[in-house]
Amino acid sequence: MAKKRNAFYAQSGGVTAVINASACGVIETARKHKDRIGKLYAGRNGILGALEEDLIDTSKESAAAIAALRYTPSGAFGSARYKLKSLEQNRAEYERLIEVFKAHDIGYFFYNGGGDSADTCLKVSQLSSAMGYPLQAIHVPKTVDNDLPITDCCPGFGSVAKYVATSIREAGFDVESMAKTSTKVFVLEVMGRHAGWITAACGLASEAAGEAPHILLFPEIPFDQDKFIAKVDATVKRAGFCVIGVSEGLQTADGKFLSDAGLRDAFGHAQLGGVAPVIANLVKEKLKLKYHWAVADYLQRAARHIASKTDVAQAYAVGKAAVELALKGHNAVMPAIVRKSNKPYKWSVGTADLAKVANVEKKMPRDFITADGFHITAKCRTYLGPLIQGEDYPPFRNGLPRYVRLKNVAVPKKLGTPFKL
Amino acid sequence: MAKKRNAFYAQSGGVTAVINASACGVIETARKHKDRIGKLYAGRNGILGALEEDLIDTSKESAAAIAALRYTPSGAFGSARYKLKSLEQNRAEYERLIEVFKAHDIGYFFYNGGGDSADTCLKVSQLSSAMGYPLQAIHVPKTVDNDLPITDCCPGFGSVAKYVATSIREAGFDVESMAKTSTKVFVLEVMGRHAGWITAACGLASEAAGEAPHILLFPEIPFDQDKFIAKVDATVKRAGFCVIGVSEGLQTADGKFLSDAGLRDAFGHAQLGGVAPVIANLVKEKLKLKYHWAVADYLQRAARHIASKTDVAQAYAVGKAAVELALKGHNAVMPAIVRKSNKPYKWSVGTADLAKVANVEKKMPRDFITADGFHITAKCRTYLGPLIQGEDYPPFRNGLPRYVRLKNVAVPKKLGTPFKL
Repeated sequence: MAKKRNAFYAQSGGVTAVINASACGVIETARKHKDRIGKLYAGRNGILGALEEDLIDTSKESAAAIAALRYTPSGAFGSARYKLKSLEQNRAEYERLIEVFKAHDIGYFFYNGGGDSADTCLKVSQLSSAMGYPLQAIHVPKTVDNDLPITDCCPGFGSVAKYVATSIREAGFDVESMAKTSTKVFVLEVMGRHAGWITAACGLASEAAGEAPHILLFPEIPFDQDKFIAKVDATVKRAGFCVIGVSEGLQTADGKFLSDAGLRDAFGHAQLGGVAPVIANLVKEKLKLKYHWAVADYLQRAARHIASKTDVAQAYAVGKAAVELALKGHNAVMPAIVRKSNKPYKWSVGTADLAKVANVEKKMPRDFITADGFHITAKCRTYLGPLIQGEDYPPFRNGLPRYVRLKNVAVPKKLGTPFKL
Repeated sequence: MAKKRNAFYAQSGGVTAVINASACGVIETARKHKDRIGKLYAGRNGILGALEEDLIDTSKESAAAIAALRYTPSGAFGSARYKLKSLEQNRAEYERLIEVFKAHDIGYFFYNGGGDSADTCLKVSQLSSAMGYPLQAIHVPKTVDNDLPITDCCPGFGSVAKYVATSIREAGFDVESMAKTSTKVFVLEVMGRHAGWITAACGLASEAAGEAPHILLFPEIPFDQDKFIAKVDATVKRAGFCVIGVSEGLQTADGKFLSDAGLRDAFGHAQLGGVAPVIANLVKEKLKLKYHWAVADYLQRAARHIASKTDVAQAYAVGKAAVELALKGHNAVMPAIVRKSNKPYKWSVGTADLAKVANVEKKMPRDFITADGFHITAKCRTYLGPLIQGEDYPPFRNGLPRYVRLKNVAVPKKLGTPFKL
């Protein structure tokens, strides 16, 4: 029988409405296998917790607290934007990880993140093997950007998709009812700097012809100002109003972000961020139409109150599968969502080789975007539709979502050697 | 027995998540009194519909469609930002209204709006009386700004309050979990140009010490840059992060809106709107901290998916009460929410004299804001808390809220005389 060893779980990169549901899946499943997995430690602030030997003992949390992770957005143990350098550039960092793992008898490494962390997870697996330290490294997929390869979709994305589609539908109703005497053009800026998946999800709100949103601006399609203005003009003339979803990563043909369009405050300081005001201003300058704009920013990825039930289930499932894969002896793999059918939507969890996942970015296929570049196709709807299915409301108290805060009790240090990041 | 006459209903000003719930209350109640109220007409695009004799026959809508108004945001018949001038300045407009009412035998005028429309409603009542035309004018309160006097709160506000409190709590969890290596300061801009009620509602999210939001910037408190920066600095040093809710109407001591702080694009065009980026930029300039900002804009007032159950019930109740007041012979009044007790929260619908409502703006009392001007007091929580109680989710289809679109069948014109607005 395999030796009982401890496990380490860390959250990486931008958090989502459901990354804690994956944590819940990992922890609850590990607790069911106490014969094989001893303690499950979490990294405080993600991988920094491992580097700094700042581990959290998840066994100190009640079953109820862990269950509440399923409906709590954000990263319960802290996440980090910290990309380990290449093995050649900073081998010391990887060796430090192995040193900490060794000190705490960690045999399982669960890393919950996007493309960068898949790469880190793979490298940790390779180095531990080269160093003769037995470690199984499993990547747990997470990213609102939906840009990981192999997996049909990425946990975290479905909930953002549901949020932006719901929000732009609601704002569309609002603008439509006021357009006669007030705002004619409304612009909603959404995330997705390189891939237009979230922008595409806005398009789900327009189920019938003429419904908002009327125009989507994808990062994959270079911004053509004249064509855009003509489209807005035609839409307002036809429908009386125009609702636009725009990616924060919208670029001109020469690769410049529109959000860096040179906004300056009264003192001449560069004003960073915000493609929505740039687009709205353009509409005003060219067409003299009254506009409003919104920037959803973190609200969209934190909006657990309107999470997709499908997304929550998948986030939990990949966490659970990660532990099961580890127990079956897998290493350097990632549980991946496999689409079995569209109608009815059926999915299962398969296994992806990390070497094929790391550092590959999945953008929107061209045939998911209409020929004019301003909306999504039926093929895209078929893909996106199932991902926003179902509601999974958190419990409320005093009129507000009751999210959990863990105790996050530190594990006594064994090394005691500081590590400089 | 009183003569059977027709009724006219119109929506006015910025729409809300629950103004259609008031419409639902008006229409369903009118339908129960067919012995007294004949047809219920709605104004297409609010009062413009009356001026242009563009009436909608609500009797063409099914009971199911009218019931669906209860969970559909925006203005189902179209609303208008159109303020009638004073009687002295444009008596012709008021006379035209009476002319259209007369042509369609309208004896009941239900006007659903904020302070301006209360004033219009009162004037229409006065002029019809002066002209010897029998009309009962009842104002139905609605405004996300919560700034009407006499009524304890305004339908529309509770749902925005629930949305902003939920959103800033969720974003707060997000920022807190990432702050070690990423964003330290997050700014959410909310509505309420003159009154800080919505900003105050953000504060409900911080139920325990140290919870987000940490700082609120009210339109009632002149912005003191040095004090604000010192507060952000202290908060980040203590908590590791800082979440800020700011009113779009934040002003400096000399009455200048911060959103007009002089942002210009690369071509020198003024960039309108957005106090959040101005505040965020200030934090970056002074404290060199990484920031993010969001502008909720129309998303907040259209967010029917996270409406307050209390608010929906009150919106329906004032619509219902308006019809009942009319049937009892009232004129130039407004149904008002009366708070009976806080724990448990109990309310009823009373009656306010329109002369006391029109053109009075209720701002936040100073004792609802903490001494330092940056948060809400316990007294404010006691007032606001009940207004966001309960969830009232709309039905969903294909993963999205299923909102109704009415047929909005036009009533044949009787006058045929055009009216120039």
